[in-house]
Amino acid sequence: VQELDAGGMRVRLSSGETISFNHLVVATGARSRSSGVSGEDIEGIFSLRNVSDAVGIKHYIRERKAKRAVIVGSGFVSLEMCEAFRKIGLETTVICRKNYPMSKLGEEFAGPILQQLQGEGVNFIPDTRLSSFDRSSSGAVWVHTDGASMEADLVLLGIGVVPEVALAEQSGIELGPTGAIAVDNHMKTNKEAIYAAGDCCESYHRISRRPSYAPLGDTANKQGRIAGANIGGQDLVFPGIMGSYCLKVFDLEVASTGFTPDEARKAGMQVRSATIKGKSRAHSYPGSVDLQIRLIADNENGRLLGAQAIGSEGAVSRINALAAGLAAGISLEELAYLDLAYAPPFSGAWDPIHIAAQKLLK
Amino acid sequence: VQELDAGGMRVRLSSGETISFNHLVVATGARSRSSGVSGEDIEGIFSLRNVSDAVGIKHYIRERKAKRAVIVGSGFVSLEMCEAFRKIGLETTVICRKNYPMSKLGEEFAGPILQQLQGEGVNFIPDTRLSSFDRSSSGAVWVHTDGASMEADLVLLGIGVVPEVALAEQSGIELGPTGAIAVDNHMKTNKEAIYAAGDCCESYHRISRRPSYAPLGDTANKQGRIAGANIGGQDLVFPGIMGSYCLKVFDLEVASTGFTPDEARKAGMQVRSATIKGKSRAHSYPGSVDLQIRLIADNENGRLLGAQAIGSEGAVSRINALAAGLAAGISLEELAYLDLAYAPPFSGAWDPIHIAAQKLLK
Repeated sequence: VQELDAGGMRVRLSSGETISFNHLVVATGARSRSSGVSGEDIEGIFSLRNVSDAVGIKHYIRERKAKRAVIVGSGFVSLEMCEAFRKIGLETTVICRKNYPMSKLGEEFAGPILQQLQGEGVNFIPDTRLSSFDRSSSGAVWVHTDGASMEADLVLLGIGVVPEVALAEQSGIELGPTGAIAVDNHMKTNKEAIYAAGDCCESYHRISRRPSYAPLGDTANKQGRIAGANIGGQDLVFPGIMGSYCLKVFDLEVASTGFTPDEARKAGMQVRSATIKGKSRAHSYPGSVDLQIRLIADNENGRLLGAQAIGSEGAVSRINALAAGLAAGISLEELAYLDLAYAPPFSGAWDPIHIAAQKLLK
Repeated sequence: VQELDAGGMRVRLSSGETISFNHLVVATGARSRSSGVSGEDIEGIFSLRNVSDAVGIKHYIRERKAKRAVIVGSGFVSLEMCEAFRKIGLETTVICRKNYPMSKLGEEFAGPILQQLQGEGVNFIPDTRLSSFDRSSSGAVWVHTDGASMEADLVLLGIGVVPEVALAEQSGIELGPTGAIAVDNHMKTNKEAIYAAGDCCESYHRISRRPSYAPLGDTANKQGRIAGANIGGQDLVFPGIMGSYCLKVFDLEVASTGFTPDEARKAGMQVRSATIKGKSRAHSYPGSVDLQIRLIADNENGRLLGAQAIGSEGAVSRINALAAGLAAGISLEELAYLDLAYAPPFSGAWDPIHIAAQKLLK
């Protein structure tokens, strides 16, 4: 699509052809964020957005017999790719601007992640900013930072995405405060008959009650279905997101829903939080492992505002229980004595959820 | 304790000693239900309530070199003991009055359980009532039923428990409609300063809004803590139970919260339910297995009333998410687009919870 004429309800394609529409869905997605440093177009520097990117990386590793990977950034994609790279035996180095990985979770959750990465042989370099890329004389890439420089056969940029909004913006479709396309709870833009869905648009964040940009696959799926249903004549509301996500870092489950304490404070809320270390199963049951949970609640009314969990099993499952409670406005009193399904292979009689809620109530 | 004088606030022990109290907790527990047939006291016939029962069974198997176990009943304890017996190589036969195991879940959930039992070499005999026990000439036990008779080296009675209420009843403490001790939401009985907690007393069922008898370890823990806190001067309310439970049947997770469709109908409610077969992880992710979920909702207001799940992973985790939602009064609309934490190792972008809720909304 070359041009979108919102008022005239038609699009002009690059072929010159014009197509009229009754309804339009803008689903232009997002693109990988550029590092903004010189040399980013050197061969061997990749982003990872889609299957063809993945295939490209795989082929490059095989053809070039790559041995050394440098990953820039320490979010989802970066941490997941650490596992992929280590599994095929690459020397893997992560360069991170903050002093620990997944910094938005805060330091008490970064510790176990860092330990996991280092246990798996990943070289983690904190407090380091990329400054430029260079081709090395051997055909590899020199990665220059404000600290050391290092040579890599392959560089992965895992520094986030930006919504692809140029077409929408040019046609007068409103962007929201996050820079992504603004939509109402029916996934409609400000333009009649034009909807948006997926990584190009915002989501209403149910905890902050503000628009947010959270380009995740499950959210995109939901938005697409809501937009389609409404275009098809239904009247479906997308209730919004709570910022739930999870990832697997080697053998570690990391999961979050709603606010972290930092996010709550940034949103101007008075909150308290409690972090506990529990067990994934009954203490006595074989295979029981440490499970760390943090709960965040509104100081005034005791409502749950968010939760994070980390452990080699059971973290995602606890966060999903808390996400369901969060969506329905559950209180700490409820959580403290919640009738969860209990059997020793799956939890203690007091689940980490109970223990954390009781600690926070004190 | 020989006698409890509720009005005089004292107990008389079997030693003759009398002890006065300011507060008393009745925590007399439950005892295994008797089969009521003749010969139940023959050596080799066991119940399983506590650790010493377990140790007794273990010693008996070892000393007698037991090879053939017959389990009467097909609830939690029976199914869990199938695994224990098969693991040490016993020929294991389950006798069941109903035509499938865990009959309260209904036939669509019994199928996978039966398949699992049979796959593990358990002999399941449906539609069969125990009629008597007899000592066999070889020193084993003859188990007679309304069908076949069979010889066993060891018999386990897994036919439930009854609350131990004799002492309470004699002292004028009120029993509820279930036959267990009636308590208020502070775990107090009808007698001043006398509390009850655990398997001897009832629990308020939050979905049926009636007293229920659900003697489970996690509930007993909660009741005990509530009773203790209130005696200690706090004002803590036990919100009650929702009938959540789970069990492991060999490699199968079975879990439930709230009502089954049958229980809802018995409680006089107009409900609808939907059962779906989803996957425990993203379809493409290694290790993803079938996961069956059933949701039950109130026909009038669309509120969730209960859920059951079964599969070799992920069933308990889904039921706990649904239990948290259930406690907080979640609607099907919420569940259909709930912001669960998503990553392919843990679920599809559409979780079985979403799929089931959407099916039920149609």
